[in-house]
Amino acid sequence: MHIATSTDLLIEGRHFFSDVDPRALGHKSLAVNLSDLAAMGARPVGCVLGLALPQANESWLAAFAQGFHALADAHGCPLIGGDTTRSSHDLAISVTIFGAVAADRALRRDAAQVGDEIWVSGTLGAADVAYRLLDGQLPADAALLAATRRALEWPEPRVALGLGLIGVAHAAIDISDGLVQDLGHILSASRVGAQLHYDAMPVAPALHGLPPATLMQAVLGGGDVYELCFTAAADQHEQVLGAAARAGVAVTRVGHITQAPGMVVLDADGHPLSALPRGFDHFPVS
Amino acid sequence: MHIATSTDLLIEGRHFFSDVDPRALGHKSLAVNLSDLAAMGARPVGCVLGLALPQANESWLAAFAQGFHALADAHGCPLIGGDTTRSSHDLAISVTIFGAVAADRALRRDAAQVGDEIWVSGTLGAADVAYRLLDGQLPADAALLAATRRALEWPEPRVALGLGLIGVAHAAIDISDGLVQDLGHILSASRVGAQLHYDAMPVAPALHGLPPATLMQAVLGGGDVYELCFTAAADQHEQVLGAAARAGVAVTRVGHITQAPGMVVLDADGHPLSALPRGFDHFPVS
Repeated sequence: MHIATSTDLLIEGRHFFSDVDPRALGHKSLAVNLSDLAAMGARPVGCVLGLALPQANESWLAAFAQGFHALADAHGCPLIGGDTTRSSHDLAISVTIFGAVAADRALRRDAAQVGDEIWVSGTLGAADVAYRLLDGQLPADAALLAATRRALEWPEPRVALGLGLIGVAHAAIDISDGLVQDLGHILSASRVGAQLHYDAMPVAPALHGLPPATLMQAVLGGGDVYELCFTAAADQHEQVLGAAARAGVAVTRVGHITQAPGMVVLDADGHPLSALPRGFDHFPVS
Repeated sequence: MHIATSTDLLIEGRHFFSDVDPRALGHKSLAVNLSDLAAMGARPVGCVLGLALPQANESWLAAFAQGFHALADAHGCPLIGGDTTRSSHDLAISVTIFGAVAADRALRRDAAQVGDEIWVSGTLGAADVAYRLLDGQLPADAALLAATRRALEWPEPRVALGLGLIGVAHAAIDISDGLVQDLGHILSASRVGAQLHYDAMPVAPALHGLPPATLMQAVLGGGDVYELCFTAAADQHEQVLGAAARAGVAVTRVGHITQAPGMVVLDADGHPLSALPRGFDHFPVS
């Protein structure tokens, strides 16, 4: 077995709102790392947590710990160490996770093959819409927020699916910065291209009826998704569906890998979209 | 072999000054984690780095990386992954390190035995004095700062010593929050006490001539030391000295473990000091 590892640093005001439910924050802090293991097909083994807090607040900490440990227990991923300290301004959360994967069997970014089908688990777009509602970028809509907020705050890492895709899928990644951007990492690492069908995308049901531009941004460019995007040979189509069924997760074929580099997204009429939404930019030029 | 791991979260304004040399900061970010491995007697294997930056600054990053990688290379501890993101206010650095140690051979905090000699590597107090000079808590003294600053900014993790103490020492810890506080962790975990001799302490040479109260605070309570404090049976005295010589580090016997709980520090006349300095308090009551 090899050890797979992943680390994430979450900062108040950048990755979460200051008033987020601490139980949800505890859950998500671990979920984003479990999602990275899922994308490698690794089995979670344990994790460490670093917390920098502007002040010590016991009820906040208890709720954070509750959300964190509930997910850790569900995945057999005990917290084995950590560091708690005081921050100057921002709450900062660092999680590093360890997983086990059979040597040379891990799912990788650089393993996509020409002709592979491209798949996405779950649905797309809800977390992005919830984020934009909370951030005031979309007009207030309580019903829409209620229908999308869980996707943003309580993502379900696809660990069982990742394990089931070992030996079935070629390349995989989890969608943290948006489908276009994260699939782009697979394409450049594998030196291939992709053709996607916008109409095939598994849009979160709550999003139907949104303005087309908002919807496309959310589905193709929206981050914080924590679904898996993966590629598998066309003759593994049934095996992919079987692995997804066993993991209890829907998967949708959204396109295929091409020899020609670049990414083309076709609309319902077969015409390429002229401009693809951008994903999350960690260092935007202001 | 078992995997040993350690994680630290360093926050601007709490753990380092905003204008610190980024090369030194890169060194120290890894050094404090290597020091944790040293205290377990583990051999470094690899590390991951999370960086949250208020803005992207390429020359700063290049210098930080240079300091980090130079130490990583020196210890055969490659950077195997990471996460870079933008912070709201503070620069935050998270490092998680992995080490290998033979199963059931790791040095532990709970293994001190009554009668053990208590040892400290290197010298004590310089980092604390440098910190207080830079923070304005001590009157400006350019010569004293020049003589102590390296201890604060370029600590040398005692990895070789930790490896050499496997099978020789009983308990070990690295001194990050001050000798009294960190040795206190060994005492409570091992359910024993300690008697120390203040006159035996290996005071950093640059500190001679400081006011007695300042000196005692620095030596007994000063943090950021990253020397090892460890205990070993008296009949291992020569083996301890041999391991230290092979590691190229001075070690000093500063006291012994007692059955009676608590910590007593005797002065030159054999009288207990009435009040022991406090170590670093992560959440002081303001």
